Amino acid sequence: MSGSRVLLTGGSGFIGSRAIAPLLAAGYEIHALGRSRGASEGVTWHELDLLDDRAAGRVVADVAAEQLLHLAWYAEPGRFWAAPENLDWVAASVRLLRAFAEAGGRRAVIAGTCAEYDWSDPVERCSELDYGSRQATPLRPATLYGASKHATRLVAAAYAPQAGLSLAWGRVFLLYGPGEDQRRLVPQVAGALLAGEPAQTSDGAQVRDFMHVDDVAAGFAALLASNVEGPVNIASGEGVSIADVLALIAAAAGRRELLRLGALPRRAGEPDRLVADTRRLSGEVGFAPAIALEQGIAETVDALAAAGREGGRGR
Amino acid sequence: MSGSRVLLTGGSGFIGSRAIAPLLAAGYEIHALGRSRGASEGVTWHELDLLDDRAAGRVVADVAAEQLLHLAWYAEPGRFWAAPENLDWVAASVRLLRAFAEAGGRRAVIAGTCAEYDWSDPVERCSELDYGSRQATPLRPATLYGASKHATRLVAAAYAPQAGLSLAWGRVFLLYGPGEDQRRLVPQVAGALLAGEPAQTSDGAQVRDFMHVDDVAAGFAALLASNVEGPVNIASGEGVSIADVLALIAAAAGRRELLRLGALPRRAGEPDRLVADTRRLSGEVGFAPAIALEQGIAETVDALAAAGREGGRGR
Repeated sequence: MSGSRVLLTGGSGFIGSRAIAPLLAAGYEIHALGRSRGASEGVTWHELDLLDDRAAGRVVADVAAEQLLHLAWYAEPGRFWAAPENLDWVAASVRLLRAFAEAGGRRAVIAGTCAEYDWSDPVERCSELDYGSRQATPLRPATLYGASKHATRLVAAAYAPQAGLSLAWGRVFLLYGPGEDQRRLVPQVAGALLAGEPAQTSDGAQVRDFMHVDDVAAGFAALLASNVEGPVNIASGEGVSIADVLALIAAAAGRRELLRLGALPRRAGEPDRLVADTRRLSGEVGFAPAIALEQGIAETVDALAAAGREGGRGR
Repeated sequence: MSGSRVLLTGGSGFIGSRAIAPLLAAGYEIHALGRSRGASEGVTWHELDLLDDRAAGRVVADVAAEQLLHLAWYAEPGRFWAAPENLDWVAASVRLLRAFAEAGGRRAVIAGTCAEYDWSDPVERCSELDYGSRQATPLRPATLYGASKHATRLVAAAYAPQAGLSLAWGRVFLLYGPGEDQRRLVPQVAGALLAGEPAQTSDGAQVRDFMHVDDVAAGFAALLASNVEGPVNIASGEGVSIADVLALIAAAAGRRELLRLGALPRRAGEPDRLVADTRRLSGEVGFAPAIALEQGIAETVDALAAAGREGGRGR
C-alpha cells in the first residue's frame, strides 16, 4: 500500500480523463479501473466491468490503494435520468466502497450531482450545509438518477466513520468542454451552427452554473488531496442563463443568426435556477476554477470546429 | 407468469417463515429464494445466495413472478446495526428489484424498519405520511442499518413508477415470538429466568411498539394483497415499556424475583419512545393484529420452556 496510491474509476470518461493530469501533478500513483482504457502515460489500467462486483473486489483488494476517486456511473445522454442502470451503479458503488475500505483505504471522494437537491422550490444558491442564516438546501431528488446518487451518499456517509474512512462527496453541476458527448447541449448546438444549420433550443431563460470539465476534474483532485469531509459542490458559483451560454457558442462559431431560442419547449421538471454555493470549495478546499466561461466556450467550439474539419462532424 | 405467484426472500427467517402460512391461505403460489430451505409444504424453494446477483437474477427471470415480498437482510443480533454487510444488502436489494420488474413483476413489498425514523426527537407516534396536523416523522436514521434501509427505499420508490411497479414498504418495529434468535431480548431474559438465573436488564423505561411475529408476517401478507403504496408501519400502535414486557416474561416464567431492572446501562442512541402510527395499516390495508401482548409473551415463554425441557437451553 502506498500513501499516494489512488484508485480511479471513470478514468476514461469525460471528467475522469481530465482528472489524470492533476492527479499525476499532485504526485499520486494512479490505478484506473473500468471497461475502457484511457490515456496510459503514468496510469496503471485494470480493465474490468465495475458492475461485476467480484472481479472489481479482487482488483481493489490487490491494488490496496489508500485513496479512492469514484467518478464512474451510467451517463448515457438523455437516458441517464431515468435509466434502470442507475440501480446497478448504486449497487456497484456501495460494494466498491466496502471493498476499498477493507483493503485498507483511508480517503474516498465520490461524484454526486446537483440533481440531489430539491428543484421544486429554487433557491438563490444550493448549499451543502447550514451557513449562518442560510440553511442547507433540502435533498429531494426528482429523478431516479438524483435519488440513486442521494441514496449512495446516505449509505456511504453512514458507513465511512465506522470503516475509518474520510469521505467527501463532490456534487457536480453543469459542465462542458472539449470531448463532451455530442448529444449534450454545447456540442449539439455548436455542431449545428458550425455546419451552417439552425440550432433549435428552449427559451434559455433558465439560470445554470457552468464549469469547464478541466476545472471540475482539478476540483475533484483538490478535494481528494484535502481533508474536507461531507458534501462539497464542485461548481463555479456563477449563475448564467442558458441563453447567454448559447450566445457565447454562437459568437464563437460566428453564426449568431442561426440560433432559434424558444423553438423547443423546456424539459419537464427543469428548475428555473440551479446555482451552487461554493464556499466550501473555495474556502475549505481552497480551489478556484481557472477557466472563464467565455474563454472555455470559445476553446470548446474551436476544438469542435477542428474535429469537424478533420473528420466530418461525427454526429 | 401467474397472477398469484409470489417471490419470497427471507422465507426461512424469523418473519419470512411465518409469512408462508398467510400467503398460502391467500392463494399465492410461493417461490422462496435464499441460502437455507425452510418449510417445504406448498413452497418451491430455490437455494441460492441472494448476494450473488447473477445467480439471483437468473432465478428471478425464470420464476417470472407477478409479486415480490422481499424480507431478506443481514440480521445478526447485535452486529446488524453497524455491519458492513448492510452495504451488500442495499446492493442485492436494488438489483433484485430491477430483475423482478424486468421479469414482468407488478407488485413489490419490501421490509423496512423503524430505524429509518429520526430517533433524536421522539414523537408520540412515528407517522409514514402527513395526516392533517400531524406531519410525517422525519427520516433521519442514526445507524448504518437504518441508513441502508432508507437508501434502498429511496431508490426503490424512484424506480417503481417508471418500471410500472406498485411498491409498498413495510416498516417493522419491535417483534417477538417463538423461534426468535436466542440473543435477542425476550428469549434472552426468558431463558435466564427459566434456568433460574437472574436476568440483568436496563431500567426498562423505554417505550416500544411490540408485535407478535405471526401478526407481523400476516400484516406483510395483507399489505402485499392490498393496493396500498408507499411506506406502511407494520406494528401494533400500542406503546408499552420494556419494563412491562419484562414483567410479562417474568410472570409467564414464574420468576419475577430474578428480574434485575437497571443492572445494565441503556444502549447508546436508544430513543425513549418508539411507537408507530398504524392508521395506514388498520385503515388502508384493513389489517389488525390478532395476538395480545400478554398472550403472545406467555406463549413465547411456554415455547422456550418446552424447548428447554427437550434439549437444554441451547444457548
